[in-house]
Amino acid sequence: MKLNIIPLGGTGEIGKNLLVFEYEDSIVVIDGGVKFPDDELLGIDLVIPDISYLEKRKDKIKGIFVTHGHEDHIGGLPFILPRLNVPVYATKLTIGLVRAKVQERGGYPDSLFRVLEPGKPVQAGEFEVEAFRVTHSIPDAVGYSLLSPVGRVIYTGDFKVDYTPIDGHEMDLSKLAEWGQEGVLALLCDSTNAERPGMTMSERVVGKTLRDWFARAEGKIIMATFASNVHRIQQAIDAAMELKRKVCVVGRSMEQVVRTAHELGYLHLPAEDMLVDVGEINNFSHSRLLVLTTGSQGEPFAALTRMATGNHRQVNVAPGDTVIISATPVPGNEKLIGRTINHLYQIGAEVVTKDMGLVHVSGHACQEEIKLVIRLTRPKFLIPHHGEVRHQVALRKIGQSLGYEEKQIPITQLGTRVVITPEKMEIGDRVEAGSVYVDGLGIGDVGQIVLRDRKQLSKDGVVVVVVGLTRGKGVPHSIVSGPDIISRGFTFMKEANDLIEGAKNNATVAIEVQLKQESWEWGVMRAAIHESLSNYFWDKTRRRPMILPVLLQV
Amino acid sequence: MKLNIIPLGGTGEIGKNLLVFEYEDSIVVIDGGVKFPDDELLGIDLVIPDISYLEKRKDKIKGIFVTHGHEDHIGGLPFILPRLNVPVYATKLTIGLVRAKVQERGGYPDSLFRVLEPGKPVQAGEFEVEAFRVTHSIPDAVGYSLLSPVGRVIYTGDFKVDYTPIDGHEMDLSKLAEWGQEGVLALLCDSTNAERPGMTMSERVVGKTLRDWFARAEGKIIMATFASNVHRIQQAIDAAMELKRKVCVVGRSMEQVVRTAHELGYLHLPAEDMLVDVGEINNFSHSRLLVLTTGSQGEPFAALTRMATGNHRQVNVAPGDTVIISATPVPGNEKLIGRTINHLYQIGAEVVTKDMGLVHVSGHACQEEIKLVIRLTRPKFLIPHHGEVRHQVALRKIGQSLGYEEKQIPITQLGTRVVITPEKMEIGDRVEAGSVYVDGLGIGDVGQIVLRDRKQLSKDGVVVVVVGLTRGKGVPHSIVSGPDIISRGFTFMKEANDLIEGAKNNATVAIEVQLKQESWEWGVMRAAIHESLSNYFWDKTRRRPMILPVLLQV
Repeated sequence: MKLNIIPLGGTGEIGKNLLVFEYEDSIVVIDGGVKFPDDELLGIDLVIPDISYLEKRKDKIKGIFVTHGHEDHIGGLPFILPRLNVPVYATKLTIGLVRAKVQERGGYPDSLFRVLEPGKPVQAGEFEVEAFRVTHSIPDAVGYSLLSPVGRVIYTGDFKVDYTPIDGHEMDLSKLAEWGQEGVLALLCDSTNAERPGMTMSERVVGKTLRDWFARAEGKIIMATFASNVHRIQQAIDAAMELKRKVCVVGRSMEQVVRTAHELGYLHLPAEDMLVDVGEINNFSHSRLLVLTTGSQGEPFAALTRMATGNHRQVNVAPGDTVIISATPVPGNEKLIGRTINHLYQIGAEVVTKDMGLVHVSGHACQEEIKLVIRLTRPKFLIPHHGEVRHQVALRKIGQSLGYEEKQIPITQLGTRVVITPEKMEIGDRVEAGSVYVDGLGIGDVGQIVLRDRKQLSKDGVVVVVVGLTRGKGVPHSIVSGPDIISRGFTFMKEANDLIEGAKNNATVAIEVQLKQESWEWGVMRAAIHESLSNYFWDKTRRRPMILPVLLQV
Repeated sequence: MKLNIIPLGGTGEIGKNLLVFEYEDSIVVIDGGVKFPDDELLGIDLVIPDISYLEKRKDKIKGIFVTHGHEDHIGGLPFILPRLNVPVYATKLTIGLVRAKVQERGGYPDSLFRVLEPGKPVQAGEFEVEAFRVTHSIPDAVGYSLLSPVGRVIYTGDFKVDYTPIDGHEMDLSKLAEWGQEGVLALLCDSTNAERPGMTMSERVVGKTLRDWFARAEGKIIMATFASNVHRIQQAIDAAMELKRKVCVVGRSMEQVVRTAHELGYLHLPAEDMLVDVGEINNFSHSRLLVLTTGSQGEPFAALTRMATGNHRQVNVAPGDTVIISATPVPGNEKLIGRTINHLYQIGAEVVTKDMGLVHVSGHACQEEIKLVIRLTRPKFLIPHHGEVRHQVALRKIGQSLGYEEKQIPITQLGTRVVITPEKMEIGDRVEAGSVYVDGLGIGDVGQIVLRDRKQLSKDGVVVVVVGLTRGKGVPHSIVSGPDIISRGFTFMKEANDLIEGAKNNATVAIEVQLKQESWEWGVMRAAIHESLSNYFWDKTRRRPMILPVLLQV
């Protein structure tokens, strides 16, 4: 009697969450997220989990259960669902967001979307799956309990313990306590903030701070935040209402989320006429406007970035405007957001960031909240999930501080099975797992070789050497045209005449040495040209452009 | 009677500091730094200030005065000095570091290096230049007073107010007060930390924290910090001595700084035999070792990074080792350093970062220190320097809080003159200024066109299309070879047969359309192939590789 837990994403990393639970012939999947590419993944748009393991076991999959509507939990579904064709279970808002996302890439059968309610278990093969409410930076977030003959396993999903949530839906701590009394085999716990002591503050404090800044503002207020943070948006709208400002929503993802959340009843507009179209904002005085927008991460094409650089068609930033960046930079984005802030100051706007007051709080649990959940559920085994190694290790330390032993808290790795029986937990073998790169329409056609080439091209460009040789089979051949040189991204050619002439001479010498051989081969000739020019350019410039010899028989 | 102050670097940015002071026929330059390239400057190694303005006025330049030995103040000198051939003035350690740096790129006449002492003025044309001691994260740092017939201008250089500096050299606040009493026309002030309230803590507190962590460590201690932070290194060495650990210095820049600082008397070794060579570290028990190393920013080739990934030839990290990262991530490096931390945890090391205690303090003044310097010097005009726009604006706000008016505090821009007379300050015209890119041996040969090409190449690679056409002047021509296609960084070719065949067909059609024209031109033919393939690839892949058509007459 064994339960296998296999993280295909979200462990040892933040992003592309995908957890597999397997008991005999039943597989239940939780989430299917994306990760945004690191800088060295040149040209890659998205990174999704490798689901080969699931594709080979399609028949066993009873469903994909989704915890909440953030990209790192649902962004992979447009790619994953069509390949698995299984039901998707989630709460109402999450299903709404998944549906909208899947639509963009071809859709998915309506019958496979299943709205579930927290507290009402769903039978999925041998698993009884029950969602429980958690609080997080998006409404309608849940964690899951998976009850199988081996015992109960709980995955928190992304959570914080917010005692005063904006929508009144508290985290279901009582349910966790109840399960804890009955006996929990394993707890998979969000580790994102496990390095941070204390407790994450309630979303409600942000509302208060926003209202204070709003009240002080004289010109336009432009507030950038994550589009999915519906409660943040609700609080901004409420403050705007109170201060008699109209609200204008700008930016594709912000417009989409506001529409979906409003349609499904998750966003409340205190007055029907309080939203104004972006085309109409010039009809209102600046002091009567709140612009809600995207770009809190400094993303080059997001609305706030374009406003800051004077490249937005409809909204400009004026001296005296107040720009509130209600977010924290995702690691790697610090420079981009810094650039936006500088542009805004250059214009003469007031800029309010997290450093100046509580205009943002995290959506993840800090150490004391994690301790609470462990104490309530009293699991036999504790599995840090949703985090890099540093976060997993931090969660292990929290567990140890509560009396767990190291061997009860595994640091899991992508694709490695955690095998659990009612008595013990072991690390099993490794299944096929990893990252699949999405580049344009291509899924998985860009791998290490292509990326290595892109890296070389990005640093020093490309040099094409074109040589025409005499036709015919017998020796001797001779050069009849070229070598000619075309380069891109290497050096500014117009000022590099000497360099290029030298390169031609070097190539000629290399070719002629080959031609003098009794017999010569195309491959060897190309290699000789490559080596000669590679050395020559390194000597002269300390650069290594990609060299592509093109030989033609003329 | 006019003094011109022209920032050629270091304003609106952090990095490549270079300030020009011009009074009639006298020019004095302060600093000549580098900036490290942003991510979008693909392949660029360094960014240095454009000094065209100075090159055209060589004869007027009386000297370059250097504030301290950090890269962003001296890193440009190997490129700048040979082009100006003027004396360099600095304190002893700074001269030592400049000399070592200039040596690497060909050297500079010994007679042009002038060691100066704080408090002893140097006449440089119409300027009387006097250095005054400041405290900063490198020893022997100074600011400068420039006295000209227009009045006295003071530049703080990089500073903090450390009342308990490690080397006992306090910041010369009395001198600033004295000049303040006499009358100061303008103060150029370090703005780096102008957004931060309060005071930066003394370097001395770091020594205490380090000693505590050292005392707790059981295995090896590996401490990474900025090589130039000689006082930090001194404190680590002192703590190691006390706890009977030997010290091993690893990493090129760390070894170089330790050598220079020791030779010049800025670093004190409490026992002659306490340094051990990296080759010998296996002769010592782990619990008796402190490794001082580079890589606190996660730089891919730095020593700590290689140790963390098991790629360092001599030093490995073992479970139970303590790794102290005694630095703060420079914006943009957060992800790299995070990766190193994850690798270290994976190995099972303890990792100590700034978040866990005071293992690092800044070298720059916070708001209260800036106020102190303004109050002491009582300048007529206040010029925020050494900072991005956000920092300059923050410094302006500090000035305003002390009663200055906005017009007394200009937000300067690169290359724009600040013109000062004893009565007033104005913004003048803009001189030639900007960034020059260093790529390998090339200085300035990579510009926007090359960078744009590199960007395209980095995202979607390159496709070379080779076509042989019949020789001869008369129409009709025909295709005799190809079109053949070579690509790199575009897609994994072995699995893209259909795509490539389709591309060949498209190219053939485009060529034949041209060949049917009454007359055709090479350029038009190339453009037609380019357009046809560009559209084809976009349709099929949503990518835009660089397309290079190569036409040959065969």
